[in-house]
Amino acid sequence: MRLAAFTDYGLRTLMLLADAPETATTTAHLARRLDIPYNHLAKVVQDLARGGYIATQRGAGGGMKLSRPPGAIRLGEVVRFLEQRHAMVECFRSDGGACRLTPGCRFRSKLAAAREAFLGELDKSSIADCAHPGPEVAAP
Amino acid sequence: MRLAAFTDYGLRTLMLLADAPETATTTAHLARRLDIPYNHLAKVVQDLARGGYIATQRGAGGGMKLSRPPGAIRLGEVVRFLEQRHAMVECFRSDGGACRLTPGCRFRSKLAAAREAFLGELDKSSIADCAHPGPEVAAP
Repeated sequence: MRLAAFTDYGLRTLMLLADAPETATTTAHLARRLDIPYNHLAKVVQDLARGGYIATQRGAGGGMKLSRPPGAIRLGEVVRFLEQRHAMVECFRSDGGACRLTPGCRFRSKLAAAREAFLGELDKSSIADCAHPGPEVAAP
Repeated sequence: MRLAAFTDYGLRTLMLLADAPETATTTAHLARRLDIPYNHLAKVVQDLARGGYIATQRGAGGGMKLSRPPGAIRLGEVVRFLEQRHAMVECFRSDGGACRLTPGCRFRSKLAAAREAFLGELDKSSIADCAHPGPEVAAP
């Protein structure tokens, strides 16, 4: 099972923001800290803003901050939001997919329960629990 | 979170085999029933044989069968085996990935726990619980 790189980057962004929730940060600054291309991270930031996780302010002294207290943002909630465009398997697609076993399948509901167990486990922790302190040291 | 199509196809194969565990079936027959390209399914079957889930026998009357009772094959075990070549996120790769947050990351262990919750939920059921009966009706 894989999470999309986009989801991974979104989580990294929130982990950095959670360390200093009152300080506005720019996409350029985060892109350098995370060593992720600016254009890629800008799309992630846009999605996080759309989801109500961060608030952005333009102009001098502007930037982004978390829009909710980091302790109130559960990890499972974030993963559920960022992964919503990815179907777990074919039959979870919005068009239902074309699996020949879908009528009468006894696996689908078990997979859905497993996904809930995954997200439920993540929901035990918040972004505050994963705040990433200080400027990390670059690999030598 | 996504499972690879390869994993999905492997599970579909086992669900069909579990319905008649004593009857040898060919890859060609399964490919037709599942409407999956023969060459793709042949690789899936090869992997399932390598994992000890099915036994294949060549020649007239040959084919594949489950190599263990379907009630003894847990779903989580199968998913773990088929997904082993896919890292959940970058830092789960065998080379450790290049995430700048890896030193001191507080998210990785929570993600590992969530994966165990996912697989543990699947392990509550066996392939026998998901046996797919009879030749399914094709969509109109």
